Amino acid sequence: MEPMEPTTRLRLDVAYDGTSFHGWTRQPGLRTVQGELEGALATILRRDVPTLTVAGRTDAGVHASGQVAHVDLTREQGDRLARQRHKPRSADSEESLAELLKRRVNGVLGPVPDVVVTAVRLAPEGFDARFSAIWRRYRYRIADAVAAHDPLQRHRTAWHAGELDVARMDAAARSLLGLHDFAAYCKPREGATTIRTLQDFSWRRDDDGVLVAEVKADAFCHSMVRALVGASVAVGEGKLAASDLPLLRDVGERTSAFKVMPARGLTLVEVGYPPDEELASRAEQTRARRELDSSRVTVE
Amino acid sequence: MEPMEPTTRLRLDVAYDGTSFHGWTRQPGLRTVQGELEGALATILRRDVPTLTVAGRTDAGVHASGQVAHVDLTREQGDRLARQRHKPRSADSEESLAELLKRRVNGVLGPVPDVVVTAVRLAPEGFDARFSAIWRRYRYRIADAVAAHDPLQRHRTAWHAGELDVARMDAAARSLLGLHDFAAYCKPREGATTIRTLQDFSWRRDDDGVLVAEVKADAFCHSMVRALVGASVAVGEGKLAASDLPLLRDVGERTSAFKVMPARGLTLVEVGYPPDEELASRAEQTRARRELDSSRVTVE
Repeated sequence: MEPMEPTTRLRLDVAYDGTSFHGWTRQPGLRTVQGELEGALATILRRDVPTLTVAGRTDAGVHASGQVAHVDLTREQGDRLARQRHKPRSADSEESLAELLKRRVNGVLGPVPDVVVTAVRLAPEGFDARFSAIWRRYRYRIADAVAAHDPLQRHRTAWHAGELDVARMDAAARSLLGLHDFAAYCKPREGATTIRTLQDFSWRRDDDGVLVAEVKADAFCHSMVRALVGASVAVGEGKLAASDLPLLRDVGERTSAFKVMPARGLTLVEVGYPPDEELASRAEQTRARRELDSSRVTVE
Repeated sequence: MEPMEPTTRLRLDVAYDGTSFHGWTRQPGLRTVQGELEGALATILRRDVPTLTVAGRTDAGVHASGQVAHVDLTREQGDRLARQRHKPRSADSEESLAELLKRRVNGVLGPVPDVVVTAVRLAPEGFDARFSAIWRRYRYRIADAVAAHDPLQRHRTAWHAGELDVARMDAAARSLLGLHDFAAYCKPREGATTIRTLQDFSWRRDDDGVLVAEVKADAFCHSMVRALVGASVAVGEGKLAASDLPLLRDVGERTSAFKVMPARGLTLVEVGYPPDEELASRAEQTRARRELDSSRVTVE
Protein backbone atom coordinates (compact mmCIF):
# COMPACT_ATOMS: atom_id res chain seq x y z
CA MET A 1 0.00 0.00 0.00
CA GLU A 2 1.24 3.49 -0.84
CA PRO A 3 1.77 5.82 2.10
CA MET A 4 -1.12 8.32 2.41
CA GLU A 5 -0.29 11.78 1.13
CA PRO A 6 -0.76 14.36 3.91
CA THR A 7 -4.02 16.22 3.37
CA THR A 8 -5.86 19.17 4.90
CA ARG A 9 -9.51 18.52 5.72
CA LEU A 10 -11.87 21.50 5.38
CA ARG A 11 -15.43 21.65 6.67
CA LEU A 12 -17.87 23.40 4.31
CA ASP A 13 -21.27 24.71 5.45
CA VAL A 14 -23.60 24.92 2.49
CA ALA A 15 -27.03 26.43 1.77
CA TYR A 16 -29.11 25.83 -1.36
CA ASP A 17 -32.45 26.30 -2.99
CA GLY A 18 -33.12 22.73 -4.14
CA THR A 19 -35.72 23.73 -6.76
CA SER A 20 -33.45 23.39 -9.78
CA PHE A 21 -31.24 20.57 -8.47
CA HIS A 22 -31.64 16.84 -8.92
CA GLY A 23 -30.68 16.46 -5.28
CA TRP A 24 -27.27 16.44 -3.61
CA THR A 25 -25.56 13.41 -5.14
CA ARG A 26 -23.51 13.77 -8.32
CA GLN A 27 -25.24 12.12 -11.29
CA PRO A 28 -24.02 12.10 -14.89
CA GLY A 29 -25.86 14.63 -17.07
CA LEU A 30 -27.97 16.06 -14.22
CA ARG A 31 -27.47 19.28 -12.28
CA THR A 32 -26.84 18.35 -8.64
CA VAL A 33 -25.47 20.28 -5.66
CA GLN A 34 -22.43 18.00 -5.33
CA GLY A 35 -21.80 18.26 -9.07
CA GLU A 36 -22.04 22.06 -8.95
CA LEU A 37 -19.69 22.39 -5.96
CA GLU A 38 -17.16 19.86 -7.26
CA GLY A 39 -17.29 21.68 -10.61
CA ALA A 40 -16.36 24.91 -8.82
CA LEU A 41 -13.53 23.10 -6.98
CA ALA A 42 -12.30 21.75 -10.33
CA THR A 43 -12.19 25.31 -11.71
CA ILE A 44 -10.16 26.47 -8.72
CA LEU A 45 -7.87 23.47 -8.20
CA ARG A 46 -7.66 22.58 -11.92
CA ARG A 47 -7.21 18.80 -11.61
CA ASP A 48 -7.47 15.84 -9.20
CA VAL A 49 -10.83 17.20 -8.14
CA PRO A 50 -11.50 16.14 -4.56
CA THR A 51 -14.78 14.42 -3.67
CA LEU A 52 -17.14 16.02 -1.18
CA THR A 53 -18.46 13.93 1.72
CA VAL A 54 -21.81 15.17 2.99
CA ALA A 55 -23.93 14.83 6.14
CA GLY A 56 -27.34 14.62 4.43
CA ARG A 57 -27.74 13.42 0.86
CA THR A 58 -30.89 15.41 0.11
CA ASP A 59 -33.36 14.35 -2.58
CA ALA A 60 -34.34 16.29 -5.70
CA GLY A 61 -36.10 19.52 -4.77
CA VAL A 62 -35.14 19.44 -1.07
CA HIS A 63 -33.44 22.60 0.24
CA ALA A 64 -30.72 23.16 2.82
CA SER A 65 -29.77 26.08 5.02
CA GLY A 66 -27.31 24.12 7.18
CA GLN A 67 -25.86 21.30 5.10
CA VAL A 68 -22.33 20.19 6.08
CA ALA A 69 -19.67 18.60 3.86
CA HIS A 70 -15.94 18.04 4.01
CA VAL A 71 -13.17 17.91 1.47
CA ASP A 72 -9.55 16.82 1.69
CA LEU A 73 -6.95 18.92 -0.10
CA THR A 74 -3.52 17.53 -0.88
CA ARG A 75 -0.53 19.71 -0.14
CA GLU A 76 -0.22 20.40 -3.87
CA GLN A 77 -3.87 21.50 -4.07
CA GLY A 78 -3.41 23.68 -1.01
CA ASP A 79 -0.40 25.31 -2.65
CA ARG A 80 -2.31 25.85 -5.89
CA LEU A 81 -5.14 27.48 -3.93
CA ALA A 82 -2.72 29.64 -1.91
CA ARG A 83 -1.34 31.11 -5.13
CA GLN A 84 -4.86 32.55 -5.78
CA ARG A 85 -4.64 34.65 -2.62
CA HIS A 86 -4.93 38.43 -2.91
CA LYS A 87 -1.69 40.17 -2.05
CA PRO A 88 -2.31 41.34 1.53
CA ARG A 89 -2.29 45.10 1.99
CA SER A 90 0.16 45.97 4.75
CA ALA A 91 -2.59 46.38 7.37
CA ASP A 92 -4.46 43.16 6.48
CA SER A 93 -3.71 39.84 8.03
CA GLU A 94 -3.25 37.10 5.45
CA GLU A 95 -6.49 35.43 4.29
CA SER A 96 -6.62 31.86 5.67
CA LEU A 97 -6.80 28.88 3.31
CA ALA A 98 -10.38 28.31 4.50
CA GLU A 99 -11.48 31.92 3.85
CA LEU A 100 -9.76 31.81 0.49
CA LEU A 101 -11.58 28.62 -0.53
CA LYS A 102 -14.93 30.10 0.49
CA ARG A 103 -14.34 33.29 -1.49
CA ARG A 104 -13.09 31.45 -4.57
CA VAL A 105 -15.87 28.83 -4.63
CA ASN A 106 -18.62 31.46 -4.19
CA GLY A 107 -16.92 33.60 -6.84
CA VAL A 108 -17.09 30.71 -9.32
CA LEU A 109 -20.72 29.92 -8.37
CA GLY A 110 -21.75 33.37 -9.62
CA PRO A 111 -23.37 36.56 -8.36
CA VAL A 112 -26.83 35.24 -7.34
CA PRO A 113 -26.44 31.47 -7.19
CA ASP A 114 -28.89 28.89 -5.86
CA VAL A 115 -26.09 27.26 -3.85
CA VAL A 116 -23.79 29.18 -1.50
CA VAL A 117 -20.89 28.08 0.70
CA THR A 118 -21.77 29.93 3.91
CA ALA A 119 -18.65 28.97 5.88
CA VAL A 120 -15.36 27.10 5.47
CA ARG A 121 -13.08 26.18 8.34
CA LEU A 122 -10.27 23.77 9.09
CA ALA A 123 -11.93 20.54 10.23
CA PRO A 124 -11.01 19.51 13.78
CA GLU A 125 -8.99 16.32 14.20
CA GLY A 126 -11.15 13.25 13.49
CA PHE A 127 -14.00 15.20 11.85
CA ASP A 128 -16.04 13.43 9.16
CA ALA A 129 -19.07 15.39 7.85
CA ARG A 130 -21.05 12.17 7.47
CA PHE A 131 -19.81 9.74 10.08
CA SER A 132 -19.18 12.18 12.93
CA ALA A 133 -22.69 13.62 12.71
CA ILE A 134 -24.92 12.71 15.67
CA TRP A 135 -28.17 14.25 14.43
CA ARG A 136 -29.85 15.96 11.49
CA ARG A 137 -32.62 18.53 11.82
CA TYR A 138 -35.16 19.25 9.08
CA ARG A 139 -37.99 21.79 8.80
CA TYR A 140 -41.15 21.40 6.73
CA ARG A 141 -43.45 24.32 5.81
CA ILE A 142 -47.12 24.08 4.76
CA ALA A 143 -49.41 26.99 3.86
CA ASP A 144 -52.96 25.72 4.40
CA ALA A 145 -56.25 27.52 3.67
CA VAL A 146 -55.90 29.93 6.61
CA ALA A 147 -52.21 30.77 6.03
CA ALA A 148 -50.74 33.48 3.80
CA HIS A 149 -49.89 32.04 0.37
CA ASP A 150 -46.81 34.13 -0.26
CA PRO A 151 -45.51 33.81 -3.83
CA LEU A 152 -42.04 34.89 -2.61
CA GLN A 153 -41.93 31.84 -0.30
CA ARG A 154 -43.54 29.38 -2.71
CA HIS A 155 -40.22 27.65 -3.49
CA ARG A 156 -39.86 26.44 0.09
CA THR A 157 -43.50 25.97 1.14
CA ALA A 158 -46.03 23.27 0.25
CA TRP A 159 -49.51 24.68 -0.36
CA HIS A 160 -52.51 22.79 0.97
CA ALA A 161 -56.10 23.59 -0.06
CA GLY A 162 -57.95 22.75 3.19
CA GLU A 163 -57.51 23.98 6.75
CA LEU A 164 -55.30 21.87 9.02
CA ASP A 165 -55.67 21.38 12.77
CA VAL A 166 -52.18 22.12 14.07
CA ALA A 167 -52.87 21.06 17.69
CA ARG A 168 -53.89 17.55 16.56
CA MET A 169 -50.88 17.37 14.23
CA ASP A 170 -48.53 18.39 17.03
CA ALA A 171 -49.96 15.79 19.42
CA ALA A 172 -49.66 13.08 16.77
CA ALA A 173 -46.08 14.10 15.95
CA ARG A 174 -44.95 14.00 19.58
CA SER A 175 -46.42 10.51 20.03
CA LEU A 176 -43.88 9.16 17.52
CA LEU A 177 -40.72 10.19 19.41
CA GLY A 178 -38.09 7.72 20.53
CA LEU A 179 -36.14 4.73 19.24
CA HIS A 180 -38.38 2.73 16.89
CA ASP A 181 -38.50 0.89 13.60
CA PHE A 182 -39.82 3.54 11.18
CA ALA A 183 -40.20 1.14 8.20
CA ALA A 184 -43.83 2.32 7.75
CA TYR A 185 -42.44 5.82 7.13
CA CYS A 186 -39.50 4.86 4.89
CA LYS A 187 -39.12 4.14 1.20
CA PRO A 188 -37.50 0.71 1.39
CA ARG A 189 -33.87 0.42 0.32
CA GLU A 190 -32.12 -2.92 0.10
CA GLY A 191 -30.20 -3.62 3.31
CA ALA A 192 -30.88 -0.20 4.88
CA THR A 193 -31.93 -0.13 8.48
CA THR A 194 -35.17 1.67 9.31
CA ILE A 195 -34.50 1.84 13.06
CA ARG A 196 -34.06 5.45 14.06
CA THR A 197 -34.25 7.64 17.15
CA LEU A 198 -36.74 10.41 16.49
CA GLN A 199 -35.54 13.11 18.91
CA ASP A 200 -37.89 15.94 18.03
CA PHE A 201 -41.05 16.16 15.97
CA SER A 202 -43.43 19.06 16.58
CA TRP A 203 -45.82 21.35 14.71
CA ARG A 204 -46.49 25.05 15.23
CA ARG A 205 -48.19 27.85 13.31
CA ASP A 206 -45.96 30.85 12.57
CA ASP A 207 -47.20 34.47 12.67
CA ASP A 208 -48.06 34.36 8.94
CA GLY A 209 -50.19 31.23 9.55
CA VAL A 210 -47.70 28.85 7.91
CA LEU A 211 -47.47 25.44 9.62
CA VAL A 212 -43.91 24.49 10.47
CA ALA A 213 -42.64 21.07 11.53
CA GLU A 214 -39.31 20.64 13.30
CA VAL A 215 -37.99 17.09 12.84
CA LYS A 216 -34.74 15.86 14.39
CA ALA A 217 -33.29 12.35 14.45
CA ASP A 218 -29.90 10.63 14.64
CA ALA A 219 -30.40 9.91 10.92
CA PHE A 220 -33.32 9.49 8.54
CA CYS A 221 -34.24 6.70 6.19
CA HIS A 222 -35.28 7.56 2.66
CA SER A 223 -38.18 10.08 2.37
CA MET A 224 -38.89 9.65 6.10
CA VAL A 225 -39.54 13.33 6.91
CA ARG A 226 -41.92 13.73 3.99
CA ALA A 227 -43.81 10.58 5.04
CA LEU A 228 -44.03 11.77 8.67
CA VAL A 229 -45.33 15.11 7.41
CA GLY A 230 -47.86 13.39 5.13
CA ALA A 231 -49.17 11.33 8.05
CA SER A 232 -49.45 14.54 10.11
CA VAL A 233 -51.45 16.20 7.33
CA ALA A 234 -53.89 13.24 7.31
CA VAL A 235 -54.33 13.86 11.05
CA GLY A 236 -54.72 17.60 10.51
CA GLU A 237 -57.45 16.92 7.93
CA GLY A 238 -59.24 14.54 10.29
CA LYS A 239 -58.65 11.52 8.02
CA LEU A 240 -56.52 9.81 10.68
CA ALA A 241 -56.62 10.02 14.48
CA ALA A 242 -53.48 11.26 16.25
CA SER A 243 -53.20 7.82 17.86
CA ASP A 244 -53.11 6.16 14.42
CA LEU A 245 -49.57 7.34 13.72
CA PRO A 246 -47.77 5.21 16.36
CA LEU A 247 -50.10 2.31 15.47
CA LEU A 248 -49.18 2.55 11.78
CA ARG A 249 -45.52 2.80 12.79
CA ASP A 250 -45.75 -0.39 14.87
CA VAL A 251 -47.43 -2.30 12.00
CA GLY A 252 -44.11 -1.61 10.27
CA GLU A 253 -45.34 -1.64 6.67
CA ARG A 254 -45.89 1.10 4.15
CA THR A 255 -49.52 2.17 3.93
CA SER A 256 -51.75 4.22 1.65
CA ALA A 257 -53.38 5.92 4.68
CA PHE A 258 -51.29 9.04 3.99
CA LYS A 259 -49.27 10.61 1.20
CA VAL A 260 -45.57 11.43 1.07
CA MET A 261 -45.47 15.23 0.85
CA PRO A 262 -43.62 17.12 -1.93
CA ALA A 263 -39.91 17.96 -1.59
CA ARG A 264 -40.62 21.68 -1.99
CA GLY A 265 -41.59 22.24 1.67
CA LEU A 266 -38.50 20.52 3.10
CA THR A 267 -35.24 22.11 4.26
CA LEU A 268 -32.25 20.53 6.03
CA VAL A 269 -31.54 23.18 8.64
CA GLU A 270 -28.80 21.82 10.89
CA VAL A 271 -26.41 18.93 11.45
CA GLY A 272 -25.19 18.19 14.96
CA TYR A 273 -21.68 17.01 15.89
CA PRO A 274 -20.25 15.96 19.25
CA PRO A 275 -17.52 18.00 21.00
CA ASP A 276 -14.22 17.93 19.09
CA GLU A 277 -12.59 15.35 21.39
CA GLU A 278 -15.35 12.81 20.60
CA LEU A 279 -15.36 13.31 16.81
CA ALA A 280 -13.00 10.51 15.92
CA SER A 281 -14.57 7.93 18.22
CA ARG A 282 -18.04 8.84 16.98
CA ALA A 283 -16.95 8.40 13.35
CA GLU A 284 -15.41 5.03 14.23
CA GLN A 285 -18.59 3.86 15.94
CA THR A 286 -20.73 4.91 12.99
CA ARG A 287 -18.42 3.22 10.52
CA ALA A 288 -18.36 0.03 12.59
CA ARG A 289 -22.16 -0.01 12.78
CA ARG A 290 -22.26 0.66 9.08
CA GLU A 291 -20.24 -2.48 8.43
CA LEU A 292 -22.93 -4.53 10.17
CA ASP A 293 -25.71 -2.60 8.44
CA SER A 294 -24.13 -2.35 5.05
CA SER A 295 -26.08 0.58 3.68
CA ARG A 296 -27.03 2.70 6.63
CA VAL A 297 -28.74 5.50 4.82
CA THR A 298 -28.88 9.09 5.93
CA VAL A 299 -30.79 10.26 2.93
CA GLU A 300 -33.95 12.34 3.02
CA MET B 1 -73.70 60.31 -23.21
CA GLU B 2 -75.00 56.81 -22.50
CA PRO B 3 -76.23 56.21 -18.98
CA MET B 4 -73.64 54.26 -16.93
CA GLU B 5 -74.41 50.59 -16.55
CA PRO B 6 -74.63 49.72 -12.83
CA THR B 7 -71.44 47.97 -11.74
CA THR B 8 -70.09 46.21 -8.68
CA ARG B 9 -66.62 47.34 -7.58
CA LEU B 10 -64.40 44.70 -5.99
CA ARG B 11 -61.15 45.35 -4.12
CA LEU B 12 -58.40 42.81 -4.83
CA ASP B 13 -55.35 42.37 -2.57
CA VAL B 14 -52.51 40.90 -4.57
CA ALA B 15 -49.07 39.39 -3.82
CA TYR B 16 -46.42 38.53 -6.37
CA ASP B 17 -42.85 37.50 -6.93
CA GLY B 18 -41.81 40.12 -9.49
CA THR B 19 -38.80 38.12 -10.75
CA SER B 20 -40.45 36.86 -13.93
CA PHE B 21 -42.71 39.86 -14.59
CA HIS B 22 -42.03 42.95 -16.68
CA GLY B 23 -43.65 44.97 -13.91
CA TRP B 24 -47.32 45.62 -13.15
CA THR B 25 -48.54 47.46 -16.24
CA ARG B 26 -49.96 45.52 -19.20
CA GLN B 27 -47.62 45.63 -22.20
CA PRO B 28 -48.13 43.86 -25.52
CA GLY B 29 -46.04 40.71 -25.84
CA LEU B 30 -44.59 40.92 -22.31
CA ARG B 31 -45.60 38.99 -19.19
CA THR B 32 -46.86 41.52 -16.63
CA VAL B 33 -48.88 41.18 -13.42
CA GLN B 34 -51.79 43.18 -14.79
CA GLY B 35 -51.73 41.14 -18.00
CA GLU B 36 -51.70 37.87 -16.05
CA LEU B 37 -54.59 38.89 -13.77
CA GLU B 38 -56.68 40.37 -16.58
CA GLY B 39 -56.02 37.18 -18.56
CA ALA B 40 -57.42 35.15 -15.66
CA LEU B 41 -60.48 37.47 -15.49
CA ALA B 42 -60.97 36.99 -19.25
CA THR B 43 -60.97 33.21 -18.77
CA ILE B 44 -63.60 33.51 -16.02
CA LEU B 45 -65.81 36.28 -17.46
CA ARG B 46 -65.25 35.26 -21.11
CA ARG B 47 -65.58 38.73 -22.74
CA ASP B 48 -65.63 42.48 -22.03
CA VAL B 49 -62.59 41.96 -19.81
CA PRO B 50 -62.58 44.64 -17.14
CA THR B 51 -59.45 46.72 -16.58
CA LEU B 52 -57.69 46.63 -13.21
CA THR B 53 -56.85 49.91 -11.48
CA VAL B 54 -53.87 49.59 -9.14
CA ALA B 55 -52.39 51.48 -6.18
CA GLY B 56 -48.71 51.04 -7.12
CA ARG B 57 -47.56 50.40 -10.68
CA THR B 58 -44.43 48.45 -9.75
CA ASP B 59 -41.45 48.24 -12.09
CA ALA B 60 -39.98 45.11 -13.66
CA GLY B 61 -38.60 42.79 -10.99
CA VAL B 62 -40.24 44.56 -8.02
CA HIS B 63 -42.31 42.35 -5.71
CA ALA B 64 -45.50 42.95 -3.75
CA SER B 65 -46.98 41.39 -0.66
CA GLY B 66 -49.75 43.99 -0.20
CA GLN B 67 -50.60 45.41 -3.63
CA VAL B 68 -54.20 46.69 -4.00
CA ALA B 69 -56.29 46.90 -7.17
CA HIS B 70 -59.97 47.28 -8.02
CA VAL B 71 -62.18 46.02 -10.79
CA ASP B 72 -65.74 46.91 -11.81
CA LEU B 73 -68.02 44.07 -12.85
CA THR B 74 -71.17 44.77 -14.86
CA ARG B 75 -74.37 43.06 -13.77
CA GLU B 76 -73.97 40.65 -16.70
CA GLN B 77 -70.41 39.77 -15.65
CA GLY B 78 -71.56 39.31 -12.06
CA ASP B 79 -74.28 36.94 -13.26
CA ARG B 80 -71.81 35.02 -15.41
CA LEU B 81 -69.49 34.67 -12.42
CA ALA B 82 -72.36 33.63 -10.10
CA ARG B 83 -73.17 30.71 -12.42
CA GLN B 84 -69.67 29.33 -11.60
CA ARG B 85 -70.60 28.96 -7.94
CA HIS B 86 -70.44 25.53 -6.31
CA LYS B 87 -73.88 24.23 -5.38
CA PRO B 88 -73.99 24.93 -1.65
CA ARG B 89 -74.32 21.88 0.55
CA SER B 90 -77.28 22.34 2.88
CA ALA B 91 -75.10 23.32 5.84
CA ASP B 92 -72.96 25.83 3.90
CA SER B 93 -73.80 29.46 3.50
CA GLU B 94 -73.63 30.61 -0.10
CA GLU B 95 -70.17 31.69 -1.30
CA SER B 96 -70.11 35.48 -1.79
CA LEU B 97 -69.32 36.96 -5.21
CA ALA B 98 -66.01 38.24 -3.77
CA GLU B 99 -64.99 34.82 -2.39
CA LEU B 100 -66.04 33.22 -5.66
CA LEU B 101 -63.89 35.61 -7.73
CA LYS B 102 -60.88 34.97 -5.48
CA ARG B 103 -61.24 31.20 -5.76
CA ARG B 104 -61.76 31.25 -9.54
CA VAL B 105 -58.90 33.67 -10.29
CA ASN B 106 -56.44 31.72 -8.13
CA GLY B 107 -57.71 28.49 -9.72
CA VAL B 108 -56.91 29.85 -13.18
CA LEU B 109 -53.49 31.18 -12.06
CA GLY B 110 -52.40 27.61 -11.29
CA PRO B 111 -51.23 25.49 -8.38
CA VAL B 112 -47.97 27.31 -7.45
CA PRO B 113 -48.18 30.67 -9.20
CA ASP B 114 -45.90 33.69 -8.83
CA VAL B 115 -48.97 35.93 -8.43
CA VAL B 116 -51.75 35.25 -5.93
CA VAL B 117 -54.98 37.11 -5.12
CA THR B 118 -54.81 37.05 -1.32
CA ALA B 119 -58.21 38.69 -0.67
CA VAL B 120 -61.25 39.96 -2.56
CA ARG B 121 -64.01 42.06 -0.97
CA LEU B 122 -66.79 44.39 -2.03
CA ALA B 123 -65.23 47.84 -2.26
CA PRO B 124 -66.76 50.38 0.12
CA GLU B 125 -68.64 53.31 -1.46
CA GLY B 126 -66.24 55.77 -3.11
CA PHE B 127 -63.23 53.42 -3.03
CA ASP B 128 -60.63 53.76 -5.79
CA ALA B 129 -57.51 51.60 -5.40
CA ARG B 130 -55.32 54.32 -6.89
CA PHE B 131 -56.92 57.64 -6.04
CA SER B 132 -58.21 56.83 -2.55
CA ALA B 133 -54.78 55.63 -1.37
CA ILE B 134 -53.11 57.94 1.15
CA TRP B 135 -49.79 56.18 1.47
CA ARG B 136 -47.67 53.34 0.10
CA ARG B 137 -45.12 51.37 2.14
CA TYR B 138 -42.15 49.56 0.60
CA ARG B 139 -39.45 47.36 2.10
CA TYR B 140 -35.92 46.85 0.76
CA ARG B 141 -33.63 43.96 1.80
CA ILE B 142 -29.85 43.84 1.47
CA ALA B 143 -27.57 40.99 2.55
CA ASP B 144 -24.12 42.53 3.08
CA ALA B 145 -20.86 40.76 3.92
CA VAL B 146 -21.86 40.02 7.54
CA ALA B 147 -25.44 38.82 6.73
CA ALA B 148 -26.56 35.32 5.83
CA HIS B 149 -26.66 34.90 2.05
CA ASP B 150 -29.67 32.62 1.89
CA PRO B 151 -30.24 31.17 -1.58
CA LEU B 152 -33.93 30.61 -0.67
CA GLN B 153 -34.35 34.36 -0.16
CA ARG B 154 -32.18 35.47 -3.09
CA HIS B 155 -35.20 36.46 -5.21
CA ARG B 156 -36.16 39.21 -2.78
CA THR B 157 -32.77 40.29 -1.42
CA ALA B 158 -29.99 42.36 -2.97
CA TRP B 159 -26.53 41.00 -2.15
CA HIS B 160 -23.76 43.43 -1.35
CA ALA B 161 -20.08 42.43 -1.16
CA GLY B 162 -18.86 44.79 1.59
CA GLU B 163 -20.02 45.38 5.14
CA LEU B 164 -22.52 48.22 5.66
CA ASP B 165 -22.84 50.47 8.73
CA VAL B 166 -26.55 50.26 9.52
CA ALA B 167 -26.51 52.96 12.24
CA ARG B 168 -25.12 55.55 9.79
CA MET B 169 -27.63 54.44 7.13
CA ASP B 170 -30.52 54.77 9.58
CA ALA B 171 -29.45 58.25 10.68
CA ALA B 172 -29.11 59.35 7.04
CA ALA B 173 -32.52 57.89 6.14
CA ARG B 174 -34.30 59.66 8.99
CA SER B 175 -32.78 63.00 8.00
CA LEU B 176 -34.72 62.87 4.70
CA LEU B 177 -38.22 62.71 6.21
CA GLY B 178 -40.91 65.28 5.46
CA LEU B 179 -42.41 67.19 2.55
CA HIS B 180 -39.67 67.94 0.03
CA ASP B 181 -38.84 67.98 -3.64
CA PHE B 182 -37.20 64.59 -4.22
CA ALA B 183 -36.13 65.30 -7.82
CA ALA B 184 -32.57 64.22 -6.95
CA TYR B 185 -33.96 60.77 -6.06
CA CYS B 186 -36.38 60.41 -9.04
CA LYS B 187 -35.99 59.28 -12.62
CA PRO B 188 -37.44 62.29 -14.41
CA ARG B 189 -40.79 61.86 -16.16
CA GLU B 190 -42.29 64.60 -18.27
CA GLY B 191 -44.75 66.65 -16.23
CA ALA B 192 -44.59 64.43 -13.12
CA THR B 193 -44.24 66.13 -9.78
CA THR B 194 -41.31 65.11 -7.59
CA ILE B 195 -42.68 66.73 -4.43
CA ARG B 196 -43.50 64.01 -1.92
CA THR B 197 -44.01 63.55 1.78
CA LEU B 198 -41.58 60.91 3.02
CA GLN B 199 -43.36 59.66 6.15
CA ASP B 200 -41.03 56.85 7.20
CA PHE B 201 -37.54 55.84 6.15
CA SER B 202 -35.47 53.71 8.51
CA TRP B 203 -32.88 50.94 8.47
CA ARG B 204 -32.50 47.96 10.79
CA ARG B 205 -30.61 44.66 10.82
CA ASP B 206 -32.80 41.57 11.16
CA ASP B 207 -31.78 38.50 13.20
CA ASP B 208 -30.22 36.88 10.12
CA GLY B 209 -28.11 40.00 9.58
CA VAL B 210 -30.11 41.19 6.56
CA LEU B 211 -30.48 44.99 6.38
CA VAL B 212 -34.10 46.05 5.97
CA ALA B 213 -35.38 49.52 5.00
CA GLU B 214 -38.96 50.58 5.66
CA VAL B 215 -39.99 53.38 3.33
CA LYS B 216 -43.40 55.06 3.44
CA ALA B 217 -44.67 58.11 1.54
CA ASP B 218 -47.95 59.52 0.21
CA ALA B 219 -46.70 58.41 -3.20
CA PHE B 220 -43.36 57.79 -4.88
CA CYS B 221 -41.88 59.16 -8.06
CA HIS B 222 -40.21 56.80 -10.49
CA SER B 223 -37.44 54.58 -8.96
CA MET B 224 -37.45 56.76 -5.82
CA VAL B 225 -37.14 53.94 -3.25
CA ARG B 226 -34.27 52.33 -5.12
CA ALA B 227 -32.46 55.68 -5.35
CA LEU B 228 -33.01 56.37 -1.62
CA VAL B 229 -31.64 52.90 -0.87
CA GLY B 230 -28.66 53.46 -3.17
CA ALA B 231 -27.84 56.71 -1.38
CA SER B 232 -28.11 54.88 1.97
CA VAL B 233 -25.69 52.20 0.75
CA ALA B 234 -23.16 54.91 -0.20
CA VAL B 235 -23.46 56.17 3.39
CA GLY B 236 -23.17 52.63 4.79
CA GLU B 237 -19.95 52.14 2.78
CA GLY B 238 -18.54 55.46 4.02
CA LYS B 239 -18.54 56.97 0.52
CA LEU B 240 -21.03 59.66 1.57
CA ALA B 241 -21.69 61.27 4.95
CA ALA B 242 -25.16 60.89 6.45
CA SER B 243 -25.56 64.66 6.14
CA ASP B 244 -24.92 64.49 2.38
CA LEU B 245 -28.32 62.95 1.66
CA PRO B 246 -30.47 65.98 2.56
CA LEU B 247 -27.87 68.22 0.86
CA LEU B 248 -28.10 66.21 -2.37
CA ARG B 249 -31.89 66.29 -2.09
CA ASP B 250 -31.88 70.08 -1.79
CA VAL B 251 -29.60 70.48 -4.81
CA GLY B 252 -32.55 68.92 -6.61
CA GLU B 253 -30.66 67.27 -9.47
CA ARG B 254 -29.76 63.68 -10.23
CA THR B 255 -26.23 62.82 -9.22
CA SER B 256 -23.70 60.05 -9.76
CA ALA B 257 -22.79 60.09 -6.04
CA PHE B 258 -24.85 56.90 -5.54
CA LYS B 259 -26.36 54.06 -7.57
CA VAL B 260 -30.01 53.13 -8.02
CA MET B 261 -30.28 49.67 -6.40
CA PRO B 262 -31.64 46.60 -8.25
CA ALA B 263 -35.39 45.87 -8.26
CA ARG B 264 -34.80 42.45 -6.70
CA GLY B 265 -34.59 43.73 -3.11
CA LEU B 266 -37.79 45.77 -3.29
CA THR B 267 -41.29 44.77 -2.15
CA LEU B 268 -44.48 46.86 -1.97
CA VAL B 269 -45.81 45.73 1.40
CA GLU B 270 -48.85 47.86 2.16
CA VAL B 271 -51.16 50.54 0.80
CA GLY B 272 -53.03 52.83 3.22
CA TYR B 273 -56.57 54.14 2.75
CA PRO B 274 -58.57 56.59 4.87
CA PRO B 275 -61.65 55.50 6.82
CA ASP B 276 -64.54 54.48 4.53
CA GLU B 277 -66.46 57.74 4.95
CA GLU B 278 -63.47 59.71 3.59
CA LEU B 279 -62.75 57.49 0.57
CA ALA B 280 -64.77 59.43 -2.00
CA SER B 281 -63.53 62.88 -0.94
CA ARG B 282 -59.94 61.66 -0.90
CA ALA B 283 -60.29 60.24 -4.44
CA GLU B 284 -61.81 63.56 -5.60
CA GLN B 285 -58.94 65.55 -4.06
CA THR B 286 -56.34 63.32 -5.66
CA ARG B 287 -58.05 63.50 -9.06
CA ALA B 288 -58.33 67.28 -8.83
CA ARG B 289 -54.65 67.58 -7.95
CA ARG B 290 -53.87 65.24 -10.79
CA GLU B 291 -55.57 67.59 -13.23
CA LEU B 292 -53.15 70.32 -12.22
CA ASP B 293 -50.21 67.93 -12.21
CA SER B 294 -51.10 66.01 -15.33
CA SER B 295 -49.12 62.88 -14.74
CA ARG B 296 -48.81 62.45 -11.02
CA VAL B 297 -46.89 59.23 -10.89
CA THR B 298 -47.18 56.62 -8.20
CA VAL B 299 -44.78 54.24 -9.80
CA GLU B 300 -41.83 52.62 -8.10
